[in-house]
Amino acid sequence: MKSTIALTIGDFNGIGPEIILKSITHASFNKTIQPVLIGSIEVFDYYARRLKLPLKFESVESVPAKFSSGIIPVIDTFPVTVKNIQTGKIAPDAGKCAGTAIERAAQLCSKNSVDAMVTAPISKEALHYAGYNFPGQTEMLAMLSRSSRVTMMLIAKSFRVGLATIHLPISEVAQNIFQERIIEKLETLSESLTRDFAIETPHIAVLGLNPHAGENGSIGKEEKDIIAPAIAKVRMKGINAEGPFAADGFFGMKREKKFDAVLAMYHDQGLIPLKMSGFHDGVNYSAGLKIIRTSPDHGTAFDLAGKGKANPQSMLAAIAMAHAIIANRKK
Amino acid sequence: MKSTIALTIGDFNGIGPEIILKSITHASFNKTIQPVLIGSIEVFDYYARRLKLPLKFESVESVPAKFSSGIIPVIDTFPVTVKNIQTGKIAPDAGKCAGTAIERAAQLCSKNSVDAMVTAPISKEALHYAGYNFPGQTEMLAMLSRSSRVTMMLIAKSFRVGLATIHLPISEVAQNIFQERIIEKLETLSESLTRDFAIETPHIAVLGLNPHAGENGSIGKEEKDIIAPAIAKVRMKGINAEGPFAADGFFGMKREKKFDAVLAMYHDQGLIPLKMSGFHDGVNYSAGLKIIRTSPDHGTAFDLAGKGKANPQSMLAAIAMAHAIIANRKK
Repeated sequence: MKSTIALTIGDFNGIGPEIILKSITHASFNKTIQPVLIGSIEVFDYYARRLKLPLKFESVESVPAKFSSGIIPVIDTFPVTVKNIQTGKIAPDAGKCAGTAIERAAQLCSKNSVDAMVTAPISKEALHYAGYNFPGQTEMLAMLSRSSRVTMMLIAKSFRVGLATIHLPISEVAQNIFQERIIEKLETLSESLTRDFAIETPHIAVLGLNPHAGENGSIGKEEKDIIAPAIAKVRMKGINAEGPFAADGFFGMKREKKFDAVLAMYHDQGLIPLKMSGFHDGVNYSAGLKIIRTSPDHGTAFDLAGKGKANPQSMLAAIAMAHAIIANRKK
Repeated sequence: MKSTIALTIGDFNGIGPEIILKSITHASFNKTIQPVLIGSIEVFDYYARRLKLPLKFESVESVPAKFSSGIIPVIDTFPVTVKNIQTGKIAPDAGKCAGTAIERAAQLCSKNSVDAMVTAPISKEALHYAGYNFPGQTEMLAMLSRSSRVTMMLIAKSFRVGLATIHLPISEVAQNIFQERIIEKLETLSESLTRDFAIETPHIAVLGLNPHAGENGSIGKEEKDIIAPAIAKVRMKGINAEGPFAADGFFGMKREKKFDAVLAMYHDQGLIPLKMSGFHDGVNYSAGLKIIRTSPDHGTAFDLAGKGKANPQSMLAAIAMAHAIIANRKK
């Protein structure tokens, strides 16, 4: 079975359109995926010509009932022309195009017009300038799909990291670590590992918040007061969580290999080891969302935009993962 | 030239004595290092017999003017017997023995009775129970050697990380990132790389504090308000510092290989990548101390204590690094 997947344009002044176009021309693609591009046909067409990719697009109002072979359907969400493209620049029109594409794709997913969505990277600044006040796409999609419990997961091959907090300044991390949140994240992760990754009884490692996981309370109390009790509570519910572990020693000893996922307390604690293990393979998955959404784990790479040098590997991995999750959920 | 190096016992209920004894029997050792053990001859003797290491000790009051060949001098700092040993347990007498050994070794270094000191791991809790109120050995040694500017460096082969904050709970990290501190750390690092590691014009990368290095102020202001201005100021003084870089992408792209050192803002941000790159080779160096002090980068490993299975590799690397620094400083 082919999966129908909406691919959102991301910030069109970044590498988003380029990695989408490179991905859909990839040999591994055509047999398994029917893409529907969301954003701007003019922009996609511009980048395809610039990259000399022999792609044909057709503008559609919604997802076609029947797909024409060899022609890529594109849904326009915001009126822009090639004159709006300023590669490498942060601009409100790019933010608006990115934001409307995400909204439309989420709608198509919610209505089951597509099976999943994969989002190209956006600039949070451009999104803010365009009036979208979300810390990131994950939070925006939680709202759009009315999903109350979402955990950001980053995945590189079999290394899966869930984040207890995402795009927070370090000054706000500790106050956002509380028992209910850890419990919710562990439940969401465990459910997702079973439903989306077909792991029957997932084994989850939980990291400490502080250096040395607090060293018995002498470097912070959160491990004793919050994290350990949260682990005890989910274990009572049958979730196989373990920890809290000191993060440096945990990854130094490659202990992530013994677990199906690791719950990190904050962004860099999870993302440093993940990117060190598989820089080009990283996929971002929003576990717990009612709809299926993956994305590459890198940013807009404004410095690379328009140069034709962007690596589509993470985008391809994100699309392949969306396809696999669709299949696992149907089982 | 042989270096005379004081080796402090560490927590005798942990793996400290074992890795010291295994190190001094190592083939690479005898030609370059004259060890002076500090702590308790009874404890060292107990572990040597238990490990079946053919070592001879002699109790000395201070560093001998002449060393007897094949006999290891030991300075007792606290009266304990084998009855005090409780492997794997946190105990005040072990904290007291560890603390007095550090004090004595620092004294010997300050008087130039030894060339350097290498410290076995201590339990901060045991040290606290024994009445030593320091977050760690580095801070204690800064006080003992009257060194006002100390930067904790972790080193695995040519990967060197300096820490702007050390053993702080995450909740206290952000408030401890201020311009004067970053400037001081960069100056100390740069001076140490030249004086201790013989790098003429060190190139130092500075990490951001927040996810994505603050993403232009949208995830925290410290990069714009504190870190970037601090880098600009030290560059005016001729220090080749660069950044702030987003930590996850930086290590994901292995950019540390292009720099002589990396300044991380907090413990796990520096220690996760360091331990992932060389778990058994890590050495802790207190840059900026008036005396020379290194240590293995692991802890007491209470779970391994007394089993004879502790790996002395990090301890050996710490001793070799002390020897190299002594030589570089003499140049």
